Amino acid sequence: MYHLYYHPLSAASRLIRLQLAEKSLDFSLKIEKTWERRTEFLELSPSGELPVLSLNDGGILNDWHAISEYLEETTPSPPLLGNDAIERAETRRLLGWYMHKFALEVTDLLVSERAIKRLARAGAPYSDRVQAARANIHYHLEYIEFLTERRNWLAGDYLSLADLGAAAQLSVVDYLGDVPWHLHQLAKDWYVRIKSRPSFRPLLEETIPAMPPAPHYNNLDF
Amino acid sequence: MYHLYYHPLSAASRLIRLQLAEKSLDFSLKIEKTWERRTEFLELSPSGELPVLSLNDGGILNDWHAISEYLEETTPSPPLLGNDAIERAETRRLLGWYMHKFALEVTDLLVSERAIKRLARAGAPYSDRVQAARANIHYHLEYIEFLTERRNWLAGDYLSLADLGAAAQLSVVDYLGDVPWHLHQLAKDWYVRIKSRPSFRPLLEETIPAMPPAPHYNNLDF
Repeated sequence: MYHLYYHPLSAASRLIRLQLAEKSLDFSLKIEKTWERRTEFLELSPSGELPVLSLNDGGILNDWHAISEYLEETTPSPPLLGNDAIERAETRRLLGWYMHKFALEVTDLLVSERAIKRLARAGAPYSDRVQAARANIHYHLEYIEFLTERRNWLAGDYLSLADLGAAAQLSVVDYLGDVPWHLHQLAKDWYVRIKSRPSFRPLLEETIPAMPPAPHYNNLDF
Repeated sequence: MYHLYYHPLSAASRLIRLQLAEKSLDFSLKIEKTWERRTEFLELSPSGELPVLSLNDGGILNDWHAISEYLEETTPSPPLLGNDAIERAETRRLLGWYMHKFALEVTDLLVSERAIKRLARAGAPYSDRVQAARANIHYHLEYIEFLTERRNWLAGDYLSLADLGAAAQLSVVDYLGDVPWHLHQLAKDWYVRIKSRPSFRPLLEETIPAMPPAPHYNNLDF
């Protein structure tokens, strides 16, 4: 039994929730509003970032990447990184792409400007940052389409952390209604496959009080 | 025999050079100026980023994180991640801290404003970004001091990728003369230990034409 500190708008938290669920691991959840800088939380998380995973023996793990590799090492089945060193390198490359590059160029801009500023009452969004994110997302959706035209899943034949990471990021942006699915049919087809998985259901059913998701967010047929 | 596309001002390239050398792996080097967006390079690196590692069999690996994990898997000795899942999680947490958080808050700002703009003739540096980096670095040096007061190396008893990553970042900033070592004696003591390693020597001896390093950069006694 794991315990995960998370937030519905933290894509890195979503990745770990998906990974725990795909591995059929039991876990409980606690929402953390990182912008409140709660002392008890900062004692668990030196960086102040989510997710944080608490282990059975009282151990605490920080950093989505450290946590995801830990879960792969300690619960290898089903393998979500790949079956050999080359496959794992490709999964990690794409996971890094979506968890860092996409996050920096799209998700973090939209979440901080359109959601956290509102939740934390921290002023008006900068429209140039929102516009930049909305322009940047096309290139990343095209990359998903490039990959899925050549492969069954993003990193190869099997579902991997690359799919979970990309879907974690996109699902946060989709909550805000900022994914232009109608212009990227192949990316949408891939997302429908991920969205249909039982591991995804709890994420789609969770809403933030006072900030409902885009109307199509929870629909499999959108 | 590996072949590494790198640049002396790319901290991620330095990390992989250090890892290859610590594992006594043979490799050749090719400088890549990513800002020139060379077509042949972009065919190897979809993200356009360094480092890129070319393997014996013609395989190509991208993304410092994917490369570093690949090298740990294929050449486990000496282990640079740790000896069990918990140690490895701590190494990866700190590696991520320096390779992402420190890079974003310090190295990338200084390198882009003070070096790349000059090398690429891309205009004057933004002084507010340089000032932000010079303010941010203190907190990260204090974290190194916090850790080394409690541990032999950053992640525990042994030298790890956390040390190599932190030193890779700091050595780039030190090339530019922007590390306030005189205010952080314990961090300096740790850096001297890293700097003395044979793996570090080739990095310290390499200079960029028309942009010499800070005078103390290559001295072990500074």
